[in-house]
Amino acid sequence: MASNFGSTIRVALFGQSHSAAVGVVVEGLPVGFSVDQARLDAFMQRRAPGHSAWATPRKEADKLRIVSGLNPAGQTCGAPLCGLIENTNTRSQDYETLKRIPRPGHADFTAQMKWHGYQDVAGGGHFSGRLTAGLCIAGGIALQLLDERYGIHVAAHIQEIMGIADTPFEAYNTSAEKTELLTQQMELLAQLPATQLPVLNKDADQAMRQAIAQVKEEQDSVGGIIECVTTGIPAGIGGPLFDGIESALARAVFGIGAVKGIEFGRGFAAARMHGSEHNDAYTIHDGKPCCVSNNAGGNLGGITTGAPLLFRIAVKPTSSIARPQHSVDMSCNELANLEIVGRHDPCIVPRAVPVLEATTALVVLDQLLSFPVA
Amino acid sequence: MASNFGSTIRVALFGQSHSAAVGVVVEGLPVGFSVDQARLDAFMQRRAPGHSAWATPRKEADKLRIVSGLNPAGQTCGAPLCGLIENTNTRSQDYETLKRIPRPGHADFTAQMKWHGYQDVAGGGHFSGRLTAGLCIAGGIALQLLDERYGIHVAAHIQEIMGIADTPFEAYNTSAEKTELLTQQMELLAQLPATQLPVLNKDADQAMRQAIAQVKEEQDSVGGIIECVTTGIPAGIGGPLFDGIESALARAVFGIGAVKGIEFGRGFAAARMHGSEHNDAYTIHDGKPCCVSNNAGGNLGGITTGAPLLFRIAVKPTSSIARPQHSVDMSCNELANLEIVGRHDPCIVPRAVPVLEATTALVVLDQLLSFPVA
Amino acid sequence: MASNFGSTIRVALFGQSHSAAVGVVVEGLPVGFSVDQARLDAFMQRRAPGHSAWATPRKEADKLRIVSGLNPAGQTCGAPLCGLIENTNTRSQDYETLKRIPRPGHADFTAQMKWHGYQDVAGGGHFSGRLTAGLCIAGGIALQLLDERYGIHVAAHIQEIMGIADTPFEAYNTSAEKTELLTQQMELLAQLPATQLPVLNKDADQAMRQAIAQVKEEQDSVGGIIECVTTGIPAGIGGPLFDGIESALARAVFGIGAVKGIEFGRGFAAARMHGSEHNDAYTIHDGKPCCVSNNAGGNLGGITTGAPLLFRIAVKPTSSIARPQHSVDMSCNELANLEIVGRHDPCIVPRAVPVLEATTALVVLDQLLSFPVA
Amino acid sequence: MASNFGSTIRVALFGQSHSAAVGVVVEGLPVGFSVDQARLDAFMQRRAPGHSAWATPRKEADKLRIVSGLNPAGQTCGAPLCGLIENTNTRSQDYETLKRIPRPGHADFTAQMKWHGYQDVAGGGHFSGRLTAGLCIAGGIALQLLDERYGIHVAAHIQEIMGIADTPFEAYNTSAEKTELLTQQMELLAQLPATQLPVLNKDADQAMRQAIAQVKEEQDSVGGIIECVTTGIPAGIGGPLFDGIESALARAVFGIGAVKGIEFGRGFAAARMHGSEHNDAYTIHDGKPCCVSNNAGGNLGGITTGAPLLFRIAVKPTSSIARPQHSVDMSCNELANLEIVGRHDPCIVPRAVPVLEATTALVVLDQLLSFPVA
Repeated sequence: MASNFGSTIRVALFGQSHSAAVGVVVEGLPVGFSVDQARLDAFMQRRAPGHSAWATPRKEADKLRIVSGLNPAGQTCGAPLCGLIENTNTRSQDYETLKRIPRPGHADFTAQMKWHGYQDVAGGGHFSGRLTAGLCIAGGIALQLLDERYGIHVAAHIQEIMGIADTPFEAYNTSAEKTELLTQQMELLAQLPATQLPVLNKDADQAMRQAIAQVKEEQDSVGGIIECVTTGIPAGIGGPLFDGIESALARAVFGIGAVKGIEFGRGFAAARMHGSEHNDAYTIHDGKPCCVSNNAGGNLGGITTGAPLLFRIAVKPTSSIARPQHSVDMSCNELANLEIVGRHDPCIVPRAVPVLEATTALVVLDQLLSFPVA
Repeated sequence: MASNFGSTIRVALFGQSHSAAVGVVVEGLPVGFSVDQARLDAFMQRRAPGHSAWATPRKEADKLRIVSGLNPAGQTCGAPLCGLIENTNTRSQDYETLKRIPRPGHADFTAQMKWHGYQDVAGGGHFSGRLTAGLCIAGGIALQLLDERYGIHVAAHIQEIMGIADTPFEAYNTSAEKTELLTQQMELLAQLPATQLPVLNKDADQAMRQAIAQVKEEQDSVGGIIECVTTGIPAGIGGPLFDGIESALARAVFGIGAVKGIEFGRGFAAARMHGSEHNDAYTIHDGKPCCVSNNAGGNLGGITTGAPLLFRIAVKPTSSIARPQHSVDMSCNELANLEIVGRHDPCIVPRAVPVLEATTALVVLDQLLSFPVA
Repeated sequence: MASNFGSTIRVALFGQSHSAAVGVVVEGLPVGFSVDQARLDAFMQRRAPGHSAWATPRKEADKLRIVSGLNPAGQTCGAPLCGLIENTNTRSQDYETLKRIPRPGHADFTAQMKWHGYQDVAGGGHFSGRLTAGLCIAGGIALQLLDERYGIHVAAHIQEIMGIADTPFEAYNTSAEKTELLTQQMELLAQLPATQLPVLNKDADQAMRQAIAQVKEEQDSVGGIIECVTTGIPAGIGGPLFDGIESALARAVFGIGAVKGIEFGRGFAAARMHGSEHNDAYTIHDGKPCCVSNNAGGNLGGITTGAPLLFRIAVKPTSSIARPQHSVDMSCNELANLEIVGRHDPCIVPRAVPVLEATTALVVLDQLLSFPVA
Repeated sequence: MASNFGSTIRVALFGQSHSAAVGVVVEGLPVGFSVDQARLDAFMQRRAPGHSAWATPRKEADKLRIVSGLNPAGQTCGAPLCGLIENTNTRSQDYETLKRIPRPGHADFTAQMKWHGYQDVAGGGHFSGRLTAGLCIAGGIALQLLDERYGIHVAAHIQEIMGIADTPFEAYNTSAEKTELLTQQMELLAQLPATQLPVLNKDADQAMRQAIAQVKEEQDSVGGIIECVTTGIPAGIGGPLFDGIESALARAVFGIGAVKGIEFGRGFAAARMHGSEHNDAYTIHDGKPCCVSNNAGGNLGGITTGAPLLFRIAVKPTSSIARPQHSVDMSCNELANLEIVGRHDPCIVPRAVPVLEATTALVVLDQLLSFPVA
């Protein structure tokens, strides 16, 4: 179905931007795990709007309630976990105009083509970025589980906004030295306050903030690139063909609105390399075989190599911009001009970073449980 | 499971490089469709090795047998279709060496990590490119179905090899003029003989051939980028979140060996655009609303807009190269040098083009049947 | 996953007996359907406890909230529908004893074997009959949809309790006369008040009440047989082998606690018939071919014949009885006696009737949408 | 999809009665298992027709080929296993008559309602009992795996034909004495030659043979009841709600043609018992808690108790009988008489016994791998 994914870990999202609640049901979580509510709340805050210059000032309490799936001791208990957030500010928008005049770059148009007016258009309905709150509930728990139970760590940062590049992850080489550097990068990101951009380089933070502020002033928006790394996955996870770890991650990641591309390891750059340059040679480390380099991004044939799982995604610019745009009135099929009122994120990329971490954690946990080493 | 995908159209691949047969079971095909065997054979020929300078000279009869799923009149009959190709040349390789010393860039290593020596290593086993023959059987039928029954057309070409770019598809603008040009491009590709590279520009064909020949002489390999377009899909196909058409295509495409990236519409370039530039404005055409431009690559929120579905994939360089490489002997966990004997495709990209068309056709047909307009 | 089923219509139940809420997420509902809340509440009342002599006096407000899936006009909108009921009276039980000493006939023991103490044991946890509330939310909507949009009607009645048999459905013969009688039976059941047993024969109602009262006095419990019929399904719905309509119904029905058997049409009696007697001959009715009799229970080879879909289920006696029982203390693996305090349904069968209707409606709707006539 | 089931173990059947081949693709088999071909062939022989008085004399070589999924050493290797049997005697029947005049009790009619003439009608097409050959290939391997790797044993016998009852399995009591008796029963069945009926009681064998011979002479057919037991399953396998072991077995079993009912443990008899009688008390055995009796048939709440898994199925009488029957000519929608030529099994029950064992083994193996003890 459209709103779920996973094999052992199954995630079903529900909610619309202005429905009574948004949330998630997640099945298959390993039992006996104590969910750290404070840590989960802190993670949710990274996605929440309203706390910084680059995000929409919509006020959402985002008060999370877990209504099932834990035993009285607060541990996962084998039953599906349902977490939800009540929507306090609902149904306030000019519903009819939204239904008639689709916003360019949004799913308003395709939802109308599919559902002929029955879709819930308020605030983008089921296509709202608000749906990612449910993903962060489930993924926030998955992140804790991977970390505490399996020693697997996921981190993402903004790789690029408007040509301003952050320091990349040190993940193409598996030497002890590079591994240590990568660990430091991941720790640095984990300690950043929610008010700061998730980048490794402080200068990049400044430059990106300025660029976003500028774009906002111009009543426009920008996209960007996010890089995500996962360390600690043992070799042998995943499987051949269509449920390989790349397939699973790609499927899940394109479920996040605004994602338009994904590449693993060297990705599109690999298409321009020679085999002699791209092939990762093997060596012996601590008495076990492993890859020297990591151009493959941590997997071969859909199965993990033990090296860091590395990929990047392309995020398109926010569709909602304040400038007047050309649209149509679908009620009479005539041309119409559109001015979107209200304020929106000029750049969704910073808030997409925790969403990507959450999604990655869910997929990695699912692969670990569904396609383990034989 | 690892070897299948799809919701209504379900595809299960089977076979290893040197097993008795490779093939596919495909369920859910619409009934009453007469499979054109000659057309299917011709399509299979485009993937088959041995007929050109850039491909492995391995001789495979690739004689396709459809052993179930058709009625006596040769029409799809509601029962699963099984097509297979007998492997005539099996079990001939030096099995033991392959098992001990993994080829860099191949799944030999990860298969060992997962299955501890039980995997079939001969010729890459279940990870062999030979598995794509099954994909082409199912996809070749899907291509015929889309074409004849739904007026949907799929075409792909090599976008780039070693920096040599082909003319891109005229698919970012939906004007009558550009649409006509795109149609001509697709027809040109359909008429190319199997001995020619699938490119639009004859000069690119020459330059790419030379580059591949050069790389071959250097005992090395190259990758490339393939662009794929689908026209004729009505607006409203697909769905929100994780079974959107981008999610479904991405999942399937990463099931093809050597794919390391995918991007839709402007893809990674979108990450560098402004919203005012990237948003596709709407207009009225033939009395119906549609997109003026097509930066989104034919879908918004996972649902088709009616514009051409456009994406590109990155293919890494062929892993098998004749040069000596650093590897390890996994039987004793010591360093080992590896020289791969036999001859291999210096560039897999040309043969990956029909595989991508086949995969795309299967996904599009599945989406059409599973997530139609309501 | 354990808590969901369906292909187009997907149902994911969540909740434990004493968690904050129980509920359901249902995806794939056809769009534009106005849910009749009053009718849904009335349907929920038939399952609710506390209103009659045969049921547990536990007071549950059972106040249903639909928190997503409807547009502002109250119509299904293409987004997953989440309905839930807050549990007002939670965590009150003697948790530790329940965890140590399993109740015979309950899942307490198997949950412990599976989850080693992490399961939520309060009130039966995820195995509580309370979970069927979520099933009735989703199924109650499916019943409305089938009725209003497709002209398909589902009804069930108690066929037998303690040897007291109700009049069976007139569903083994498709003559106009018998069809009319069946319609009258279904209408009669639809008009019964929630305080009356769902039976066709008033004398059976009296006799069953007395039998249940007697058993209750003896601190014991009884099971029974429920018969379910669905009319109005066109011929050609369903499919061969494992997703036939019998397979789908059987799978879903065994998800309802306490069900121990299912039989279609003549069922186990068919095993004692001759082919010449059991085969349903064909005839022409209104110019179309159809079955004369309906020993097959409305389907052949997993595909509907157009005759009423007819099946029966066996419900075991309620496991919770007040009499002292032999159990064990799993904390020290010693024998232990158990006396279950609190009051329980001496016979769960009456409340299982709407649950069976709900489940049947969900499966039939799913089959109709997933495996339609080609 | 219609032709597959399972979560980790996925089975996709293909073939029609008269297509070039029938077979199966099975994914998810544990690796490193050496398939015993001779044992598999012997198992297939139990299903094969032609060797006895009660079965159709159709000659089928039933020569099994495993074309993928094994490594050169004959072990499962992580790749999907495809096994198939070529159909040597195909397309010989009077195709047109079969298409027009449906055989009562067969899927001829419903296939026509669904596929409007495109279905393959020859020999019953995809609904032929011949499809169970594929099930026996996959299930025959699962039986070996369960036996050799997990110490789990599956056995079935004819419980009843025409009122003649065989000795039931000693599976309602878990005492050492009864367990020993059950083991002896299962061993006795395992040693029966394929020419003998799979029953425990020799007198029943004689009486059933006579009854079948009599029915055959009368140009009629009979059904029967099969009882199936599985021992050695640990407690804690399976899960709550819709993927419980009862749900999974029921779904799979109704995929076998002619099955019209299934009941677990006491089944329909449980509906007539009191709770005090039906509840299985607990005791301590070898220092561990377990059930004293086994009225539940080895599972509570969809999860195994460790006691034998016990169920029975109802098989309807063979639909194909030589007597003239009333049917219709669907080409003109007029009444028509039908005489089925050729010879058919007067009683399919004996050949259904290994099919049931195969199906049970596949489901049990899948549950073991998909829903293990946490």
